[in-house]
Amino acid sequence: MLNYNCISISAYDDREVAVEMIQRYDVNALPVVDSDGVLLGIVTVDDILDVAEEEATEDIQKGAAVAPLETRYSVASPTQLFRKRIGWLLILIFVNLISASVISSYEEYVVEFITLALFMPLVIASGGNCGAQSATLMVRAIATGDLELSDWLMAIQTVARAGDNIVSVSQLYGGDSHIAWIVGLSMIAIVFVANSFGALLPFVLSRLKVDPAAASSPLITSVMDVLGLLIYFSIAVLVLG
Amino acid sequence: MLNYNCISISAYDDREVAVEMIQRYDVNALPVVDSDGVLLGIVTVDDILDVAEEEATEDIQKGAAVAPLETRYSVASPTQLFRKRIGWLLILIFVNLISASVISSYEEYVVEFITLALFMPLVIASGGNCGAQSATLMVRAIATGDLELSDWLMAIQTVARAGDNIVSVSQLYGGDSHIAWIVGLSMIAIVFVANSFGALLPFVLSRLKVDPAAASSPLITSVMDVLGLLIYFSIAVLVLG
Repeated sequence: MLNYNCISISAYDDREVAVEMIQRYDVNALPVVDSDGVLLGIVTVDDILDVAEEEATEDIQKGAAVAPLETRYSVASPTQLFRKRIGWLLILIFVNLISASVISSYEEYVVEFITLALFMPLVIASGGNCGAQSATLMVRAIATGDLELSDWLMAIQTVARAGDNIVSVSQLYGGDSHIAWIVGLSMIAIVFVANSFGALLPFVLSRLKVDPAAASSPLITSVMDVLGLLIYFSIAVLVLG
Repeated sequence: MLNYNCISISAYDDREVAVEMIQRYDVNALPVVDSDGVLLGIVTVDDILDVAEEEATEDIQKGAAVAPLETRYSVASPTQLFRKRIGWLLILIFVNLISASVISSYEEYVVEFITLALFMPLVIASGGNCGAQSATLMVRAIATGDLELSDWLMAIQTVARAGDNIVSVSQLYGGDSHIAWIVGLSMIAIVFVANSFGALLPFVLSRLKVDPAAASSPLITSVMDVLGLLIYFSIAVLVLG
C-alpha cells in the first residue's frame, strides 16, 4: 500500500527548506520527489550540515552588506571580492551624501556653535550601533523561524523597552550647558528611533518579499547617520532658538 | 579486539568540535568518551544540526556587538536584552568620545573651513562600511576553518587589492577645489586603512586568544570613525597648509 503521508521535499524547493525539515523532524535522510510525488533521490543529514553552514555564511555576509560570495573566502579572487562588495558600498555612499546635505542645511548653526560639530560622530554613531544590534537580532530571529511576520508588534515592544533602558546611558551627558542638553536629548531620541527602525526594517523588507538580511549593519548605520543628524540639528534649533 | 582508531570526541571538548568532526567525517553519530577512552554516550547528527544553528546565531549576534543571548529572541525579557546589549554600547560610547576629542583638536580648521564638517560623516562612514565588510568576511572564514591564523598575510593581500579597486569609487570626488581633493584623498586612504584594519583585527584577536567575532561591525565602525577623522584632518592640514 502506498503511504502519501511520508515526509518529503520537492525537487523545486529551496535547499533551506531541506535544512528546516530535517531540523524539525530529526530524520537522517529526506526523500526528494518530483511534482507527481515520484521519488527522485534522497538528501542525507550530513549534506544538510554543509548546506546549513553555507546558508549561515551567506546570512553573515549579507549582514555586513556583502553580496553572498558563493565560494570559500580563501579561493575568492580580488575581482570577485570587489564585485560582491562594491554594490552596497556605492549605495551607501549615496546615503552618506544625504548626511552631508543635512549638515549643509544647518551650516549656520554649526558655524555659530562649533561644539555641535564635536558631538556629531558621537550621537550618530550611537544610533547606528543600537540600530545594528536591533536589526541583527531581528533578522536572525526571522531567519531561524523564531519570529514570524505577525510577531512584529511584540518585537517592537520588546525592543522599544530595551531601548528605553539604554537611554539612561545618555544621562551621562546631562549638564547645565545648552550643548549638554542637546546631546543628551538627541541621544535619547536617536536611540529610541534607531531601535524602532532597526527592529521594523527587517519586517518591512519581509513584507515586500525582500530578504530581511538586506537590513545590514552598514545600511542601518548609514541611514541612522541621516536620521540622527536630522534629530540632532532639529533639537539644536529648538534649544538654541 | 579493541580498535583505538575510532573517531570519537572527548566529553570535555567544546560542542563546536562535535559540529566540525561530524562535518568532516560525514558520520551519523559520534561516540563521546571520557579521558580514559571509555564510552559515555553518543551525539547524533540531528542534535548537531541544532547546535550548529545556535553557534551561527551566536556568531551573528557577536558580529553586531551583542553578547550571545543564550535563549531564543522571542522569549528573551527586556532586561536580558538590555544586559546583552549595554556592555558594548558603553564601550563604543567611549570610542565615540575619542572621535569628539579628535574633532575638537582640529576645531580651528572646522571653523575656518566649515565645508570640512559637511563631509565628515561621508568619509568616516565609508571607512566603517569597508572595514565592517572586511572584518565580517575574515571572522566567518576563521570560524568555518576556511582560514587559519597562518593565512593572515595572504588574506591581507587579497583584501588590500580589493580595497585598491574600491578606491576608484572615491575618484568621483576628484575635482579642482581644495575640499574635493581632501575628500578624495581621505577616502582613498581611509578605505585602504579600513580594509587592512578590518582584515587584521580578527587575526590579532585570535592570536591574543580572544574570540575573533569580537571584531563586530559596530566596533570596526566606531574605531574607523576615530582613525578616519585623524586621516581626514591630517590631509586637510596638509592641503590647506
